[in-house]
This record gives sequence, structure tokens and C-alpha cells, in this order.
Amino acid sequence: MSSCAAAPDHPPRPVRFGILGCASIARKLARAMLLAPGVAVAAVGSRSEEKARLFAADTGLDAAAGATARLHGSYEALLDDPDVDIVYLPLPTSLHVQWATAAAARGKHLLLEKPTALCAADLDAILAACDAAGVQFMDSTMWMHHPRTAKMLEIVDDKDAIGDIKVINSVFSFRADEDFLQNDIRVKPDLDALGALGDIGWYCIRAILWAVDYELPKTVIALRDPVKNRAGVLLACGATLYWEDGKTATFSCSFLTNLTMDITLVGTNGTLHVTDFVIPYEEKSAEFSVASKSNFAKLHIGWDPLPSKHVVTTDLPQEALMVQELARLVKNIRDADGKPEGKWPAITRKTQVVLDAVKASIDKGSEPVEIAR
Amino acid sequence: MSSCAAAPDHPPRPVRFGILGCASIARKLARAMLLAPGVAVAAVGSRSEEKARLFAADTGLDAAAGATARLHGSYEALLDDPDVDIVYLPLPTSLHVQWATAAAARGKHLLLEKPTALCAADLDAILAACDAAGVQFMDSTMWMHHPRTAKMLEIVDDKDAIGDIKVINSVFSFRADEDFLQNDIRVKPDLDALGALGDIGWYCIRAILWAVDYELPKTVIALRDPVKNRAGVLLACGATLYWEDGKTATFSCSFLTNLTMDITLVGTNGTLHVTDFVIPYEEKSAEFSVASKSNFAKLHIGWDPLPSKHVVTTDLPQEALMVQELARLVKNIRDADGKPEGKWPAITRKTQVVLDAVKASIDKGSEPVEIAR
Repeated sequence: MSSCAAAPDHPPRPVRFGILGCASIARKLARAMLLAPGVAVAAVGSRSEEKARLFAADTGLDAAAGATARLHGSYEALLDDPDVDIVYLPLPTSLHVQWATAAAARGKHLLLEKPTALCAADLDAILAACDAAGVQFMDSTMWMHHPRTAKMLEIVDDKDAIGDIKVINSVFSFRADEDFLQNDIRVKPDLDALGALGDIGWYCIRAILWAVDYELPKTVIALRDPVKNRAGVLLACGATLYWEDGKTATFSCSFLTNLTMDITLVGTNGTLHVTDFVIPYEEKSAEFSVASKSNFAKLHIGWDPLPSKHVVTTDLPQEALMVQELARLVKNIRDADGKPEGKWPAITRKTQVVLDAVKASIDKGSEPVEIAR
Repeated sequence: MSSCAAAPDHPPRPVRFGILGCASIARKLARAMLLAPGVAVAAVGSRSEEKARLFAADTGLDAAAGATARLHGSYEALLDDPDVDIVYLPLPTSLHVQWATAAAARGKHLLLEKPTALCAADLDAILAACDAAGVQFMDSTMWMHHPRTAKMLEIVDDKDAIGDIKVINSVFSFRADEDFLQNDIRVKPDLDALGALGDIGWYCIRAILWAVDYELPKTVIALRDPVKNRAGVLLACGATLYWEDGKTATFSCSFLTNLTMDITLVGTNGTLHVTDFVIPYEEKSAEFSVASKSNFAKLHIGWDPLPSKHVVTTDLPQEALMVQELARLVKNIRDADGKPEGKWPAITRKTQVVLDAVKASIDKGSEPVEIAR
């Protein structure tokens, strides 16, 4: 060990988030930012300073909690705050283009809530702004950052364990209450026009793409009889996705059925099940099961071998790991002249492209929609 | 307690099966018949007495094992055996109409392997013959008789626990080896022309109907790109089923992917998962899980309540329970002037009707097929 390393002049500068809008999901993210090492919350911006103050008090971001988040009474003021490295943007989807491009134009890195845009063309405007400004883009799909996801991917990528994936099923639903179905922004055509497809179908589509190494399907056909509210916003829908090589994936998403978060992958060699993929049942430990090279027991009276259960523990919740990973990328750009990581916007864009195709198929009464390669 | 009940003159007569054909699956059933109380195997019939002898020796049905099964060198001889109450018929599907109607015409009750027929019209010929002869019909769908199935149904029927089912997914696949794919009767167009759809899609369709109290779907649309062998027999396929009230079910079946046996039911109030529904992982104990009225935990960092795991134990394997149930019905007809139980042929017929619709949709390139009510 060398003893001649110079002591740093000052502790490493944290990467500082600005929270743009006090949506309910932002509370979860504020907690994540407090939990993630090397991360700080520089500011909270809302349409009124009073709302920002209440949010900060509620989330432990105010002076009373020993925190130093600045409070802004407008989104513009937050974007102009020189202490903000990354803007976290949980606003309704219809506001994403305006505020995400404004953030990028001011040189802010971007953590954008899903669905990232109302359509891929809008997302492209956001990604172009990030690209022009040289800032990092990441969408806020938290489960991607859980160590369980990494462990599952290791097994999915192990051709011996799972082989070629042929069938994928994914479900994400939760049972919204009357208040949600009347008043939530996710059922309002002017705020989150994609409804359940954007809010939760997003996760199913991402999971399916994740499982096939982000190979886009060739054809998308929406399930018939999607459920819409009076304003035409989707409350429940689904689709089947077809790939050139014969793989198929089916997903369902709904605001009208019990909380369900399934991915089932069936490959030539193995099968993977996870039933809480978006938000694990418990924060510190998450499971999935794998059956590999399963045979019928003699006389077909059982299975041999039995499936195996995998348990993955984590000290930090997945949203804190997400924040930490984004901070790592941003730190590399800010302090070490690094370049933005292109993987994250590329994944986002493919998710949005498939989402667009599902929406188009729904709008055409479940006609097939081809996705250009 | 009365002490004046007359002692029976002789022990109750067992209900006696005749096994018509020495298919591999018949070994499992022979074991079940030996395990089930009140059941005996009266005879084994094959195309040669030598084959019947080998089968009996292999399955503990011969004199060496202390059993008394008679050996017949032709199917006709077995049907003419007056000691046979019930014919178990595991022949290739294309032979079902001929031998099932012949058995019924001789007054034999019938346990018929699945798929029960190549089409509903053929099945109707079999059911009409059973009806005319006043004999009991049951198909050999073993999982229906596991006490786990009864327990699951209790929960499915509990509107508070599951509510209205909206989405059903089912998968049944196993990875057939090269020998199977070349030589098994289930890939031969002249023997089991329905291939994977008949052999294992049968179970998915049955599971779906079981979950919705056998309400027939309105429309069936096959998944695109079914896999066929050179002779045109289905090796992998699937379909989505649509009901009037907006319920949807999707199933996939395949000879080409790892052993998988899933039912997922998503209802307004709850979700049920079982991953070994056709053949439980282990013979004496079987599980399933139910999530009911699941909410997000505060801040959406987990689930509350957690799903619950249900474990159901059984002394007898499901196939022995099936044999026992059929024997009970037959005993009631034979010894107590009872009538055949109409529930079993009705369930069989609905399964076959949906199977026909899936096949028709496949043959039409995944066009929608309507099912008449």
C-alpha cells in the first residue's frame, strides 16, 4: 500500500437532484435520494413555494430534518438553480416535452418518469435535447436497478439454463379505487392520455424487451375489448407481440384488477417466474424461481429436477440504486469529462416505440401493427 | 347405534377396469388402479397377448404380483370380457370413436384419454353411444381430481377473495426429445392429428374453462405463427379467448420448450398462481398462491398484505382419486340403480368445442372464430 496519496482538499461533491413537481411518486424518490450515498437533494420546485415547502416537510427535505433543499415556487426557478445537477421530472406525461427539453437546454441531466412521452416522436424531441446538451437521460423504471433483475438477467443470458426464449407473459395490474378512477391524473386525457397502458403497461413492455435483449418485435396486435373510461382513456388493455423468429409475448395491464406483477419466461431449456417484478413484496429481499431442464419423474408422477428458488437481498431499495447509478453516470460527466451512457435512452426509446405500436393497434380495433426495424 | 344391521354376505364387489391398449400413459393408470380402494383391474387387452403379458408384468398386474388381470390378445376380447365394468381407453385419438362407441355398445363405462376426439362431432358420437347405453363417461384429465383443485376452486368461487376473473394465462409445455419428435404418436397425422394442441393445449383449455365455471368464450383467435412438423401436426401453438363480459384468456402449448404448467388468474379482488397444475411437482403435497386485496405498502415500497401460500396434501395421487371417483359413480349405477353423472361429459364437450375453435382459427391463419352459445 502506498502512503503517499494526497489527501483530498475537500470531501467529494455529491450529485444534486432537483425535484420538479411534487407528485405522489416524488415522495418515494425523495426518500431514495436521501438513502443513496453520494447523492443530495438541492432543490424542490412546485407551482407554489407553499406546495414545495409542504413536500419538503413531508419527505424530510426541510431544515427541520437538517436538510438544505432550496424551495422554488416555479418550475423555471428550479431549472435555473445552479446547484441542481439532475432534474427529476414526475409531472404528468403531457408536460414532459416542455419541461424535459427545458431542463436539458439548461444543461441539467434528466431522470424522467414513465411513460416518458405520449409518443415516440415526443420522446425523440426530449432525447435530441439531451443529446445536444450532452446530458445524461434515464427513465425512472426502478425495477431495472434491483440486484434481483441483474441476477435474473444472468440466468436469462445463460443459454444453458433458459435456452431460447419462446413465450413471455407479463401482467401488471392494480385495483384503483373510485377516487383514482375519477380524479387521478392517470385517467385524464389532457394529462396522461395513455392511461393504464402508459402507467403500467410500460413495465410489461419493458420487461418483455428486457427478456429478449431489447430486440424489437416485428408485429404487435392489441388484445380486443380494451376498457376505456368515458373520456377515452385506457383503463385496461393488452397485446401480443410477435418476433421474426417465432417468439411471442403477451401482456395485460389494468387499473381494474388486483395488484399483480408477473413475468413468465418460457425457453427451450428453462422457465423463469417472478410475481412481483415491478415492486418486490418486501424491500430488502426479493425472489424468483427457475425451472431448468425439467423432466417428468418416472411414470409422470412428478417433476425432476424441481424448480429452484432464488433469493436476492439488497441493503438499498431499487429506487435508491437507480438514483445512485444515475448519479454515478452524471458524476463521471461532471467531474471526469465522461460522456453520457447511451444504453438508457436507447432502452427508453424501444419501450416507447412498442407502446406506440400497441396504442396504434388499439386505435385500429386490434389490427396488426408492424414495427419498422 | 343399532346392532341389528345384517352382516354382508360377502365383501363389496370392486369396480373392475379393463385397460384397452398398452400405451405408456396406461402404466400410470394401472398404478392408480392398484392404489385406489375398491377398484380392481379385471383385464388388459392389447393387439397381441404377448404385449398384454409384458404390460401386466411391468405394472404389477400379473399373477407373479398376486394380481388376477386377464390378458387379451385383441381389443374385441377385452370388450367382451364380462368382468370388465369400465374400459380405460388410452389409444391414439384417431381410434377413439371406433373403440369408445364399441365399449359403450357393450355396456362398458368409459374412461377416455384426452384429447377425447379429433373434433366435437366425433366426441358427440361417443357421448351419444354412452348416453344410449346408460354408461358413465369421464375423460382422463387427472388434475381435476386433486384436492388442490378443489381447494383452488373454493377460492375462485369466493367472490370476496378473487372477485370477477378478468385475465387468465395458462401455459403447458414440455421439451420433447428427438425420438419423440420423430416417432411419438402425438406427432403423427394419422394417429394424433391435433399434436400439441390436443395433447397439452387440452389442459390449458380445460383450466381456463374450469376457472370461469365452464362458460364458453364467445370468440377464439389463435396466436400467429404456430409451429408444425413436416406432416402438418402442431408442435406449438396458442390462442386468446374472449368472453362477452370482457374476460380474456391466453394460452400457449408446446412440445419445444421446457416443462411448464401455469395457470394465472387475475380477478378484481385477487390473483391466483399455480405453476404445476397438470402434474404437481411432488405426489403427496401441492401448492398454489393467492394474493387477495393486495395494496401497495406506504410509499409503494412493497405489498400489503403479502400473498399467501396454500399447501394441500393428499395420500392418494390425483390419478388414483380420479379412478376412485369414476368407480364410485359406476358402483352407484351398477349396484344401486343410479344414473350417469352428466357433469363429466358436459365438461369434456366444452373443452373439445373450444379446442375445435382454436384449431379452426389456426387453420384460417388466426382469423377470429365465433363459438355458438
